[in-house]
Amino acid sequence: MADSLNCDLKSLTPLQLFEKVTEQGEKVRALKAGKAPKDEIDAAVRMLLSLKQSYKIATGQDYQAGLPPGDLALINNSTTKEDDEDFVDPWTVQTSNAKGVDYDKLIVRFGSSKIDTDLINRIERAIGQKPHRFLRRGIFFSHRDMDQILDAYENKKSFYLYTGRGPSSQAMHVGHLIPFIFTKWLQEVFDVPLVIQLTDDEKYLWKDLTIEKAYEYARENAKDIIACGFDINKTFIFSDLDYLGTSTGFYKNIVRVQKHVTFNQVKGIFGFTDSDCIGKISFPAIQAAPSFSSSFPQIFNGKENIQCLIPCAIDQDPYFRMTRDVAPRIGQPKPALLHSIFFPALQGAQTKMSASDPNSSIFLTDTPKQIKTKINKHAFSGGRDTIEEHRKYGGNCDVDVSFMYLTFFLEDDDKLEQLKQAYTSGELLTGELKKVLIETLQPLIAAHQERRKQVTDEMVKQFMTPRKLAFEF
Amino acid sequence: MADSLNCDLKSLTPLQLFEKVTEQGEKVRALKAGKAPKDEIDAAVRMLLSLKQSYKIATGQDYQAGLPPGDLALINNSTTKEDDEDFVDPWTVQTSNAKGVDYDKLIVRFGSSKIDTDLINRIERAIGQKPHRFLRRGIFFSHRDMDQILDAYENKKSFYLYTGRGPSSQAMHVGHLIPFIFTKWLQEVFDVPLVIQLTDDEKYLWKDLTIEKAYEYARENAKDIIACGFDINKTFIFSDLDYLGTSTGFYKNIVRVQKHVTFNQVKGIFGFTDSDCIGKISFPAIQAAPSFSSSFPQIFNGKENIQCLIPCAIDQDPYFRMTRDVAPRIGQPKPALLHSIFFPALQGAQTKMSASDPNSSIFLTDTPKQIKTKINKHAFSGGRDTIEEHRKYGGNCDVDVSFMYLTFFLEDDDKLEQLKQAYTSGELLTGELKKVLIETLQPLIAAHQERRKQVTDEMVKQFMTPRKLAFEF
Repeated sequence: MADSLNCDLKSLTPLQLFEKVTEQGEKVRALKAGKAPKDEIDAAVRMLLSLKQSYKIATGQDYQAGLPPGDLALINNSTTKEDDEDFVDPWTVQTSNAKGVDYDKLIVRFGSSKIDTDLINRIERAIGQKPHRFLRRGIFFSHRDMDQILDAYENKKSFYLYTGRGPSSQAMHVGHLIPFIFTKWLQEVFDVPLVIQLTDDEKYLWKDLTIEKAYEYARENAKDIIACGFDINKTFIFSDLDYLGTSTGFYKNIVRVQKHVTFNQVKGIFGFTDSDCIGKISFPAIQAAPSFSSSFPQIFNGKENIQCLIPCAIDQDPYFRMTRDVAPRIGQPKPALLHSIFFPALQGAQTKMSASDPNSSIFLTDTPKQIKTKINKHAFSGGRDTIEEHRKYGGNCDVDVSFMYLTFFLEDDDKLEQLKQAYTSGELLTGELKKVLIETLQPLIAAHQERRKQVTDEMVKQFMTPRKLAFEF
Repeated sequence: MADSLNCDLKSLTPLQLFEKVTEQGEKVRALKAGKAPKDEIDAAVRMLLSLKQSYKIATGQDYQAGLPPGDLALINNSTTKEDDEDFVDPWTVQTSNAKGVDYDKLIVRFGSSKIDTDLINRIERAIGQKPHRFLRRGIFFSHRDMDQILDAYENKKSFYLYTGRGPSSQAMHVGHLIPFIFTKWLQEVFDVPLVIQLTDDEKYLWKDLTIEKAYEYARENAKDIIACGFDINKTFIFSDLDYLGTSTGFYKNIVRVQKHVTFNQVKGIFGFTDSDCIGKISFPAIQAAPSFSSSFPQIFNGKENIQCLIPCAIDQDPYFRMTRDVAPRIGQPKPALLHSIFFPALQGAQTKMSASDPNSSIFLTDTPKQIKTKINKHAFSGGRDTIEEHRKYGGNCDVDVSFMYLTFFLEDDDKLEQLKQAYTSGELLTGELKKVLIETLQPLIAAHQERRKQVTDEMVKQFMTPRKLAFEF
């Protein structure tokens, strides 16, 4: 495979690119047929997507097997094939679009609601301050029942926040911080309790990990989460493996959900098959249960009907669609949701990042030098091939990963807008845009590392101890 | 009908018996065709079953229409007709045989081993006392790896006992006591720790019950179990709903098992379908996990590899076949098993009793008068239709429920043998046999009720508190 990339893709003609994609497609099929290791298949699929994207950029058309670029005019562009649809579930996010998943379509498909200007304005009025940049910029773009949360808030009724993370490795990247950065903001502006689930049991079930390793990752990840600055008096972080054995309420809610969801349903929602282990099949109930306040009797004083708001990436929505379906049948309120878009991999927005590929993102442990090198070397550019062309035609912010990252991390709206205009007009070069990103991320990550150093094992233990928080119920 | 029995069956040749069965079969068909009164048909059917059984005892073969005993050699014994097969799983036990399930066949089908005289003698040598009547009389008739338990015991290596109950209602009947009576004896003779699982979560999943009700039944049932006389210093009773939320080890073992069992497997073992809820599908892991000592760190000091011995009715074996299959893959020893036959319903041994049918058994709450009435009115008799016939031909202990109950509850072997002979010879009448049973059960149940009255909520709480027992590990 390496030799097929021994050249700069950008220097290839459309036909050469077509051949590369075809070749790589065959390779993926061969690997799958030969039951090659998952890592190897994943890498080959990523390469395939990347090649398809280069092809699309070069030709302005999607790659279609058997249709070399010379025949492109023959293609009726409106008859998009089914397999061009984005695929989103909790384990796989796939799109062939360099701009990333089509989130408007996803809202329709998932049946959620768009976070529109009206809702953002209502949030602003309710909290009396400027909404978070993730709201202003459509990074949290979709919701379910956020109006109800605001109704309750305006009527002085409390709610609580629930988010989580699957601790699949020690290494967390900047993308993993998105839900936590936003959740921290929500907690501060609404002043409500927060529970954070670490699904170490899920990772044990899905990955080649021991129970002990999964739990260790949970504790390590907890340190990075704590380093986001959560208030220990208002936040409970828990590992499933741990908390299931220490809570009088959690398992009861799990088994309540498990009674009301059939295998047919999880097959439909999550694509499980008869060959999946029964742990995977019943796991969705474990991610569902923290949506009900009675899973945390120590926090809510045993109260059952405290409304829950879940900020999460949209790929987690299937769990909560299921939860919302079950809730009324077990006499519980449906959790409300705020959905974020996916944080793009450095290589482009076609896929979610992978914690197992060190070059797919900026990790929270990266040094300033590593950050600089990774961005310069791997961040997919929406710029032109030559400086002359770039000056003349400008860059494309919609596919430029450095610009995307800046929308996540650069707080200053005006500066972001200036960058966009300058890049689009060709005034700002790719290297210069990357420099802004490097200078934005380096201090952010250094500060995170500094805070993380101060997180002691004792603090982790405290955060993870079931206890009353600083709220009365 | 009466004339066809005008001789002692035991004195007949196999061929004569064959003719009697054939003749009686024709009689039954004629009665049915002539729409004779139900009583008359039932009596004729009972007689037919009794004759078939005598035929089987005499020839060692099942009666087959049109195949007289001389042709028996021609029968390929392995081609048993499907509809003659007993059906046994944890929720259904069905047989068309008045003597009950064919346990020898079950041993072959389940792949367990018969508890033979050699094993009983070895147990006797190991413990230095007479084996329990349940062993002497084949009530515990099958095992898995009991030799290993004895090897360990003889080498001063400890093991522990695990049994359980599904608390589907407050009402327990005498049959429910069988595993507990035997387990108590095992605990006393081997002096080992005992854990008793109350699967209130299972009952919540399978029945139309609330979580709270299932847990209440668990606590009520615990009282009856405690009233069997278990040593509080050596016994831990737990409700799943409760213990799962208080144990650091239990859930970890559950999820270990859940990772190593697929839906295909539980479908094959338990007959689950796609329409079953995910709680049922994953439940087998919850019954499996107590087979591993690390589920009870408080008892075994965190030690992982203490061997487990499970006394239970044979219908629970599917859970433990699965457990034994998983054990080596998660680095745990396979649990050993001792299987009991089913306790027959008053109406006959064709089915297991049902706690929901008050007339199907003697309940632990029955008054002496209720016991007397139920036995006299409902206990299926192997006696003859008239006193004269009974005196002449004798009764059939193999199908007589009163006699079966006595094999469970009458300790005195000699007296039991005398009763058998007297009943079979016709010397003892059905009413007299029932009287012996009534007089055996009344004081047993009265004593149980007396002990149960002394079981306080505080005692239940103690038994159900995770704690160290009187053993060092």
